[in-house]
Amino acid sequence: MSKEQRAQVDAMLRQPRPEGPRSVEAIRAGFKALMARMIVPDSIRTAQTTLGNRPTLHVEPDAGPRAGTILYFHGGGWVFGSPETALSLTGHLVAKTGFRAYSVDYRLAPEHPFPAAIEDTLNAYRALLDSGEDPSAIAFAGDSAGGGLAVTTCLAARDAGLPLPAAIVAFSPGLDATRSGESMDTKQDIDPIFTREAVEHTGAMYLAGADPHQPLLSPAVLADLTGFPPTLIQVGTNEILLDDSTRLAARARAAGVDVILDVTADVPHVFQAFAGALDEADEALDRAALFLSQRIRTKSPAHTSAA
Amino acid sequence: MSKEQRAQVDAMLRQPRPEGPRSVEAIRAGFKALMARMIVPDSIRTAQTTLGNRPTLHVEPDAGPRAGTILYFHGGGWVFGSPETALSLTGHLVAKTGFRAYSVDYRLAPEHPFPAAIEDTLNAYRALLDSGEDPSAIAFAGDSAGGGLAVTTCLAARDAGLPLPAAIVAFSPGLDATRSGESMDTKQDIDPIFTREAVEHTGAMYLAGADPHQPLLSPAVLADLTGFPPTLIQVGTNEILLDDSTRLAARARAAGVDVILDVTADVPHVFQAFAGALDEADEALDRAALFLSQRIRTKSPAHTSAA
Repeated sequence: MSKEQRAQVDAMLRQPRPEGPRSVEAIRAGFKALMARMIVPDSIRTAQTTLGNRPTLHVEPDAGPRAGTILYFHGGGWVFGSPETALSLTGHLVAKTGFRAYSVDYRLAPEHPFPAAIEDTLNAYRALLDSGEDPSAIAFAGDSAGGGLAVTTCLAARDAGLPLPAAIVAFSPGLDATRSGESMDTKQDIDPIFTREAVEHTGAMYLAGADPHQPLLSPAVLADLTGFPPTLIQVGTNEILLDDSTRLAARARAAGVDVILDVTADVPHVFQAFAGALDEADEALDRAALFLSQRIRTKSPAHTSAA
Repeated sequence: MSKEQRAQVDAMLRQPRPEGPRSVEAIRAGFKALMARMIVPDSIRTAQTTLGNRPTLHVEPDAGPRAGTILYFHGGGWVFGSPETALSLTGHLVAKTGFRAYSVDYRLAPEHPFPAAIEDTLNAYRALLDSGEDPSAIAFAGDSAGGGLAVTTCLAARDAGLPLPAAIVAFSPGLDATRSGESMDTKQDIDPIFTREAVEHTGAMYLAGADPHQPLLSPAVLADLTGFPPTLIQVGTNEILLDDSTRLAARARAAGVDVILDVTADVPHVFQAFAGALDEADEALDRAALFLSQRIRTKSPAHTSAA
């Protein structure tokens, strides 16, 4: 069953795409249309709010949230996407954990290149702390570029002297603007979504001339992850960004961070978006939900030892 | 709280030990005494049975098992240990999943060197299959040397033309008789349990002159893992065997295997045995239990997609 599902997802993503670089407008519209096909759980409710002066989508279980907050960063190469395009992912995390989420509509390139996105996500985190939320009850989560932001916002928080969140969950994170991972080449014929050209096209909009050799742009190769909270990285083997994940995990291990590198074979970039249609997606999200539930500590701890 | 727990566990394991190699009898008695201090859940019941002509401990929930079987291989360097010394681990897996387990009392070195242990574990698997158990409802699990056996028994099953089990769970597996991992050196001052000398002392008993450069002895550096079932590896950073796990995970990824490398910082070899006293142990076992529940497929699937 699931082997067939993996093949169906792959075929859907391989549908003919226009040759050459597309305009920003075309990229944004195409991604919005693609993600509108994803399944959003119906046991959640959403509301528009603001966090750190940016529009933010508040997502919570219909039945009301338990204590604890997921600060979510959507994917889209720092150029496209929105809280709405990531709502399948955010919504399933909320539905599976019972936590509320804030999904930040951070500023996008090329209008607002690096480090605008990180300024916005850091401001959102600061606003949560200022509202009285305990950092031990906050997790950062994100997919693709947003998975990258989950890591770099934590770096920026540490640099700013803020307390760090309780956990990071990153789905197929983009963590290397130097594009030096072996998988950039070894997976180029297998990845149904990305080519080096495509990621460099949008990547250049985000860089806007900045040197990619800095931790906030290439944490998988340059960041000191000392003191980072427990981190879960989920990634597929059919992606040129695979080694962004494997190298971040190795750096995290070396820095003494609790880190889970959760690799699913024969699935594409951010396969979790296919929850409801691909068993591997639901199962990966269930593992992410358990991880979040273990790491987000609230005043009445969910976990008690058996001793 | 848990930071203190990690330090307590470390201090307990660092208690003075005798200088130099100990006799096989002393090693076996010392390990039995140490493991007798671990907490066994009281919601399980055990019974002696045989599987493939070897004594085997049957472990099941008091309330009766759900469909599905964990074939468990205890740790002890292929020289010491028994199903009883691993009962905390096996028992917690059974209690947390509801599956039954068979824990095999495979033959030990030096009386029975390589490949006696693998012959016994493979025979136990064959006996399960012969009894009508569906391989998709069987997972291999083990700790330390037994984690190694979970991998090598799967290799041996593939070589024998048998269907493979649904999953592998390995806690701090021993996967490299060539002892070539970097962590053999980089972790030698941090590991509270093992020294290179100690693992080479018992390792030589298991080898009994065999060339360590073969997949059944050093799968982390030599095994072709193509076709392997989804694999969960859990390991601590305070162990010289850490890179047995990291290298097996890398080989599994390269071979197209679903693989989760779950690393907990500042905990020792097979820290899961401290379940009930160390939060990280209980949490790791909860993650292992979810993984097993996702992978063991029975006629009435536990998993249904949300679509």
